Amino acid sequence: MPVFLNAADPGFSAEFAALLGAKREDAPDVDDTVAAIIADVRTRGDAALIELTARFDRLELTAESLAFSAAEIDAHCARVCAEDRAALELAAERIRAYHTRQMPEDARWTDASGADLGWRWSAVGAAGLYVPGGLASYPSSVLMNAIPARVAGVERLVIACPTPDGVVNPLVLLAARLSGVDTVYRIGGAQAIAALAYGTETIAPVDKITGPGNAYVAAAKRRVFGRVGIDMIAGPSEILVIADADNDPDWIALDLLSQAEHDESAQALLITTDAAFGQRVAQAVDRRLETLERRAIAGASWRDFGAVIVVETLDQAAELSDRIAPEHLELCVADPEALLTRIRHAGAVFMGAWTPEAVGDYIGGPNHVLPTARSARFSSGLSVLDFLKRTTIARMTPQALAEIGPAGERLAQSESLEAHGLSIRARLDRLNRRG
Amino acid sequence: MPVFLNAADPGFSAEFAALLGAKREDAPDVDDTVAAIIADVRTRGDAALIELTARFDRLELTAESLAFSAAEIDAHCARVCAEDRAALELAAERIRAYHTRQMPEDARWTDASGADLGWRWSAVGAAGLYVPGGLASYPSSVLMNAIPARVAGVERLVIACPTPDGVVNPLVLLAARLSGVDTVYRIGGAQAIAALAYGTETIAPVDKITGPGNAYVAAAKRRVFGRVGIDMIAGPSEILVIADADNDPDWIALDLLSQAEHDESAQALLITTDAAFGQRVAQAVDRRLETLERRAIAGASWRDFGAVIVVETLDQAAELSDRIAPEHLELCVADPEALLTRIRHAGAVFMGAWTPEAVGDYIGGPNHVLPTARSARFSSGLSVLDFLKRTTIARMTPQALAEIGPAGERLAQSESLEAHGLSIRARLDRLNRRG
Repeated sequence: MPVFLNAADPGFSAEFAALLGAKREDAPDVDDTVAAIIADVRTRGDAALIELTARFDRLELTAESLAFSAAEIDAHCARVCAEDRAALELAAERIRAYHTRQMPEDARWTDASGADLGWRWSAVGAAGLYVPGGLASYPSSVLMNAIPARVAGVERLVIACPTPDGVVNPLVLLAARLSGVDTVYRIGGAQAIAALAYGTETIAPVDKITGPGNAYVAAAKRRVFGRVGIDMIAGPSEILVIADADNDPDWIALDLLSQAEHDESAQALLITTDAAFGQRVAQAVDRRLETLERRAIAGASWRDFGAVIVVETLDQAAELSDRIAPEHLELCVADPEALLTRIRHAGAVFMGAWTPEAVGDYIGGPNHVLPTARSARFSSGLSVLDFLKRTTIARMTPQALAEIGPAGERLAQSESLEAHGLSIRARLDRLNRRG
Repeated sequence: MPVFLNAADPGFSAEFAALLGAKREDAPDVDDTVAAIIADVRTRGDAALIELTARFDRLELTAESLAFSAAEIDAHCARVCAEDRAALELAAERIRAYHTRQMPEDARWTDASGADLGWRWSAVGAAGLYVPGGLASYPSSVLMNAIPARVAGVERLVIACPTPDGVVNPLVLLAARLSGVDTVYRIGGAQAIAALAYGTETIAPVDKITGPGNAYVAAAKRRVFGRVGIDMIAGPSEILVIADADNDPDWIALDLLSQAEHDESAQALLITTDAAFGQRVAQAVDRRLETLERRAIAGASWRDFGAVIVVETLDQAAELSDRIAPEHLELCVADPEALLTRIRHAGAVFMGAWTPEAVGDYIGGPNHVLPTARSARFSSGLSVLDFLKRTTIARMTPQALAEIGPAGERLAQSESLEAHGLSIRARLDRLNRRG
């Protein structure tokens, strides 16, 4: 049974704090192992990559077979049935349409001093997407990472995806093709991250690495951060549903379970204004858990980290929601727009009972790579901005420099940075001699 | 003497690669020390902070004196002369005007399926700015960090700035006041970062930490990343000047020295189409080094990491510049706009000989917190976006769900995420029963 809390209870504040602070994941300390693997790939390149892939994935590669050939990808894609292909194509199209709207504008303007200012966006040159192998090899994640990169204008887009025992998910390759990925490498783990960051004889280095992975991949991403850009380190999935009594308990139960089934460390929370409704949802969860394929995982998540929280008002719900800063937030209430205005910290919001969170995982359009572990307080889901960077632009006229330069010189002197001041002064002196 | 390279020489490619790969900074490994300090502050809060400040800054504080009082700030600000105040005010105004233009737009739209999609930006709740003490305690950095945070709408904005032996730079306090900073704490080092990230009895935790610092501060920021957001870890400063022969060698020399004087590990590079001009700039640097206050630092930087690179064409210059991906790039050429279109990777660009880089450090308007160490390939300077996060929004109508839901269900099944699929199916079944 999950925790039942009532915001009106005297002990609520402490119980809620305990829920927020619960450590859901014990990441193993693999940092030394990862450091050694990265050093090995930096030193020995392809040879290390091939050796490590043989050891960890039981797969014998050569420099030539590190990447799938076009013919191999063709053959795998041909195995995908028409219905799956159509679903992936619809998802790709909708994700592309959403992310295309995110493209930011360049700007240039001239201010009152005559200074010409602005900025310009440009795409990262090359990006590498990590795609886990085995059970967590999700084609939807390929779309969610690769399409924003392509929309941003990234020139070279590659995937690293381990294929243990040579097994590959054909949908992953089809998603890569639909997203415009250039190359798919059959490599995984810390060795793949090292190859993407530093390059080998066969694999050119990239500038940015995104995508989920296990503890080794996460530790390797942390280590190469700075050499290349990385996305956030993802934690276990979370959902918060805020629901009034006017909902089908079974729908809400399924929405909670759709995150709980990801991982035993996932967290599914319900905040409701109606205690009896909360009970009905919990009963519906139990019923669904009797037959759900992933009931062992979803049941453990719900038992260990699930909670039903009863509040008096939706204002209270919004306040608690902001303290949770959930990755996914469903507003299953009569007026979700009104409630949304009171919410500040959430990765993605799903408005109304007809918008199950799963829509956002696949075909809504917004990205499903979202901030976990309360990081929606300070970070955003993946977007085209993750594959772009901004160059600021400034151009002074002699008149503009005459107007604002002396203040710059003064500040340089106050910071004892003489050459800074002199670089302005030398120009001002020329103007004064002219004047 | 710095390196002189000519792109036409047979050995150029290797020499240029060596220049790019030169390790300029040997960061000491302080990670264990930093981990212990963070653990101490998490466990003992204010008491640890007070003890560590006594040890490292030779300053006895109490919980009450951790922060400057308003009266103390008043008294320090009153020590600032009118000229320095006016210069800071002009800088603040110009930085505010530039960053106000960066505020991104929210978006909502309805697509062909009837799905209502969009996103909304909101500010981080609380931000902490680290400001180094002593010689590198720069008021300009306070403006560059605090103003974007305030423009973004951050509610609580605090500074941590160590005051070794109780010495404080009054300009830092004035800059904090002009930027709208709420509280300035007299703490520094890893202990300050720990207090900002985790909070103590007196200091409420923040959501985002930005600002430069020494190796301890940088290691602490890396460690608390995830708990809070951080900005990039800054490396030593860099400038690349691309100049044709039609420039005053002394201006260019001063621009190079304005970065070289920051740090012995700073790097100042000149690319020119005229070898004789390159020689004249090097001579001008030597002349200026005879008298420059910070000649020991600037001279070491120029000798060890400076370079003059001669190219045939500006196209070649642009190509090399993109491989360098400089933090600061000056285009001192007849047509800087034309050259800009050929540049892709740079933190900030300064257009034409009347725009010395120092303008950008103080009063141009753009931010001076910029990507170093080739990270302009994948990251941007500080901006209002660093203090904002985006929540995506999706709202399905029953009709929209009927149109796109089946594809989502299909993809969920293909990923063996049954509850995801069922959460869509339960709603589609209701529609079908209605229909």
